[in-house]
Amino acid sequence: MADLRTLAAELPADAVVTDPDIVASYRQDWARDPDAGTPLAVVRATSTADVQATLRWASRERVPVVPRGAGSSLSGGSTGIEGGVTLSTERMRDIAVDPVTRVAVVQPGALNAAVKAAAAEQGFWYPPDPSSFEICSIGGNAATNAGGLCCVKYGVTTDYVLGMEVVLADGTAVRLGGPRLKDVAGLSLTKLFVGSEGTLGVITELTLRLLPAPPAAATLVAGFPTVELAADAVVAITAGTRPAMLELMDNGSINAVEDVVKMGLDRDAGALLLARSDAPGTAAAVEIEAIRAACEKHGAQEVFTTDDPDEGEAFTVARRAAFPAMERFGTLLLEDVGVPVPELPTLVRGIGEIAAAHDTRIVVVAHAGDGNTHPIIAYDPNDVASTERARLAFGEVMDLALSLGGTITGEHGVGRLKAPWLADQLGDDVMALTRRIKDALDPEGILNPGVVLA
Amino acid sequence: MADLRTLAAELPADAVVTDPDIVASYRQDWARDPDAGTPLAVVRATSTADVQATLRWASRERVPVVPRGAGSSLSGGSTGIEGGVTLSTERMRDIAVDPVTRVAVVQPGALNAAVKAAAAEQGFWYPPDPSSFEICSIGGNAATNAGGLCCVKYGVTTDYVLGMEVVLADGTAVRLGGPRLKDVAGLSLTKLFVGSEGTLGVITELTLRLLPAPPAAATLVAGFPTVELAADAVVAITAGTRPAMLELMDNGSINAVEDVVKMGLDRDAGALLLARSDAPGTAAAVEIEAIRAACEKHGAQEVFTTDDPDEGEAFTVARRAAFPAMERFGTLLLEDVGVPVPELPTLVRGIGEIAAAHDTRIVVVAHAGDGNTHPIIAYDPNDVASTERARLAFGEVMDLALSLGGTITGEHGVGRLKAPWLADQLGDDVMALTRRIKDALDPEGILNPGVVLA
Ligand SMILES: Cc1cc2nc3c(=O)[nH]c(=O)nc-3n(C[C@H](O)[C@H](O)[C@H](O)COP(=O)(O)OP(=O)(O)OC[C@H]3O[C@@H](n4cnc5c(N)ncnc54)[C@H](O)[C@@H]3O)c2cc1C
Ligand SMILES: Cc1cc2nc3c(=O)[nH]c(=O)nc-3n(C[C@H](O)[C@H](O)[C@H](O)COP(=O)(O)OP(=O)(O)OC[C@H]3O[C@@H](n4cnc5c(N)ncnc54)[C@H](O)[C@@H]3O)c2cc1C
Repeated sequence: MADLRTLAAELPADAVVTDPDIVASYRQDWARDPDAGTPLAVVRATSTADVQATLRWASRERVPVVPRGAGSSLSGGSTGIEGGVTLSTERMRDIAVDPVTRVAVVQPGALNAAVKAAAAEQGFWYPPDPSSFEICSIGGNAATNAGGLCCVKYGVTTDYVLGMEVVLADGTAVRLGGPRLKDVAGLSLTKLFVGSEGTLGVITELTLRLLPAPPAAATLVAGFPTVELAADAVVAITAGTRPAMLELMDNGSINAVEDVVKMGLDRDAGALLLARSDAPGTAAAVEIEAIRAACEKHGAQEVFTTDDPDEGEAFTVARRAAFPAMERFGTLLLEDVGVPVPELPTLVRGIGEIAAAHDTRIVVVAHAGDGNTHPIIAYDPNDVASTERARLAFGEVMDLALSLGGTITGEHGVGRLKAPWLADQLGDDVMALTRRIKDALDPEGILNPGVVLA
Repeated sequence: MADLRTLAAELPADAVVTDPDIVASYRQDWARDPDAGTPLAVVRATSTADVQATLRWASRERVPVVPRGAGSSLSGGSTGIEGGVTLSTERMRDIAVDPVTRVAVVQPGALNAAVKAAAAEQGFWYPPDPSSFEICSIGGNAATNAGGLCCVKYGVTTDYVLGMEVVLADGTAVRLGGPRLKDVAGLSLTKLFVGSEGTLGVITELTLRLLPAPPAAATLVAGFPTVELAADAVVAITAGTRPAMLELMDNGSINAVEDVVKMGLDRDAGALLLARSDAPGTAAAVEIEAIRAACEKHGAQEVFTTDDPDEGEAFTVARRAAFPAMERFGTLLLEDVGVPVPELPTLVRGIGEIAAAHDTRIVVVAHAGDGNTHPIIAYDPNDVASTERARLAFGEVMDLALSLGGTITGEHGVGRLKAPWLADQLGDDVMALTRRIKDALDPEGILNPGVVLA
């Protein structure tokens, strides 16, 4: 067994936690894997030096390390490893906004919402907005290349990471990129570490690009008889305009949400599109009218628009409520498959068939403008058969997405949960290429083993 | 000496070129390195299979391979290697636009301008716009992560590459990413190959994201007494608005251009800013007025605006003319250093001092909104002392940029020309990390040796 005392000796007094109750609270992330391992200890790092000491020790002792931000992973990326160490960044939360260079320099444990707030205080905007923005860390966002609702227009996390400090498996801390908007000196290493899910290094600082404060947005909600028609509208809308949000809810998710929020969503609609325009000034109204025309041309029955921000936000909140609203139907598996946008209807129809075949409740919400869907699978964890059916459906949804030229994960990451499916998407040659890079950077394999590469 | 016959046997009849005159025309790229090597042969690949055969052969025979698109590199990235093979993609130019999925699938040898035109034909827009767009290949753009004028708002090449096919050093062809707007399955390998300057693999196909056709743009030109004031205006403008272009010309480049174009640019201005707004509808006028206000607040003496596209384009053409306009002062070294935007005035002032100290003509044009500058150094190649002074100035400009927290290259790449300076920017640890990745992917070191890693 690894010698925790030599580690503790290099860290601040209370950094190494072995209290069983506390350690147990770090076993699972939001994927709630029942088979999560119990770490030997949790290290609550306070600095880059702490992270370096931990990785040097772990390399020497060959102890697996699970980097962890806020533990909101839906793919088991921060699930504990039996006998490993979970390295939490929760105490590293500093945020410094530089309004002249227009960047934020942040420690990884800062929550996304805190970064947004600090930027807003100085009149700036940090766009990436995962639905979990109030409960996920910016380091976790970078490690997973998190997306969100506004990324259909404003891009995902990688588009905002200008630079980082990252600690490699052997404890070396390197600085990549920096506060420069364009920089091609050397390989695109910053981009490689974004999305690496803790398997190549531990991010200890990020330099983030900020935009001017976002303009006010107008909102449109349209009900369609079928998902097919809604998807046709999505293709038409994105061919001509750049909405700042373009979300889809299927009939199941509309009803699950309406049960709870009671805001008069059309329970009979086959699908609902939720779009936002933040084009400046009067252009928003023009863009909203163009979106309305595309919706009506493709069979929208009811179209509602508003330029009242609060009214618009209420619909976004309703869309975000799909996940909690489904909780009364059981334990949830939140899927994340993506397809080329034109394949959306085939995917959603196929998911309905999978649900029926396995007698399992699945509803779909989607970042439709990106082709990224979140089928939400509900099951009863105390019922072995129900659990097994959900598990089968989960796999079949991924198989279906792949058969449509899609991806097993659009934004949540591969984690541990989806690692067994990754080779089906990438193929053996790309898996081998991935392995070569992993081995070059983490030869002992101590960094988040089981994630990405099963 | 490597056996070219075994290579030729695997390729189409006229693919392997050894005619000395033709081969000589592939020695140099636009960096015009007098010490360029003469390749053993040029391979004009017609397909992925040709590229694979060439790399398999080169790996076996340990022959260095220089991937080459259109040879417009300004950093010697496609300069020939004595005894090596230059692998040209000029015959691989297919372009297929899919208007429904909104992507273009292109072969690497297609010119940037051809990709733009094919997209436009279907009502779409491929934004990245290096000044060389008519003479550079899309594969070269991806390999260098090329920038341009619109990237201050629309991003650089990496933001548009959704997927690629790339042939590795051993001849394996792999597919990375695909026509999915969001995809986090596995490491960010597509992003790693973008900007790798032919050192990790040869790109044989790209899947590019297209945007809706760009809206009409309004243009603003403002003259400032000093570069400092112009730079202050840039900081103020980008804090509140998102111009679609924000270029700077210093007094030297204004005069060099005015000598040629005679359009009445203010020869006495210390600096000129050229901005563009493509905000939709009436919002463009509002944005242009905000930019005007920021310029006037920071000392602009003369501000001219137009919403006539041709009149606006004339100024862009003038800005692009800086490079040819300087040619009558000698042979040119086109620099590419970048700094955080607030450091622009210090950089430009320092460049003036370097020019004076070395009695060398240097004028500056800049993608000011990105902090990316192109000091243009003119010298007499037949005068050893002049050449040596230019060479010294070239190095000192990079040293200066680094001392200001900048980069030795914002968009042109490291190539061979700047490889000796890369470690000064990245440091030994990042160089070692780079080497680990290079060795993992190209163990024999056959891919573009001397580029990036000297
Ligand atoms: C209700 C809900 C809604 C969600 N909505 C979205 C959404 O819209 N879009 C989206 O993209 N995601 C969403 N997620 C998923 C999740 O919030 C994101 O993946 C988020 O980026 C994870 O951040 P975290 O700090 O919680 O990371 P963790 O769960 O702690 O870790 C996630 C991964 O990142 C690694 N990691 C964390 N910090 C570091 C670090 N400093 N260095 C290296 N590796 C690190 C971990 O090892 C793990 O592999 C949602 C989750 C929930 C629960
Ligand atoms: C007048 C002028 C203006 C310019 N303006 C700009 C500008 O505004 N912005 C900008 O970014 N650049 C600019 N450039 C530089 C140059 O045009 C870019 O670097 C361009 O991307 C190079 O493309 P190319 O096809 O000419 O590549 P090459 O010169 O042929 O090659 C460039 C690099 O890419 C590699 N490469 C080429 N094709 C492949 C492939 N298929 N697979 C792998 N590697 C490959 C080569 O090995 C080399 O390292 C300018 C150049 C000139 C001459």
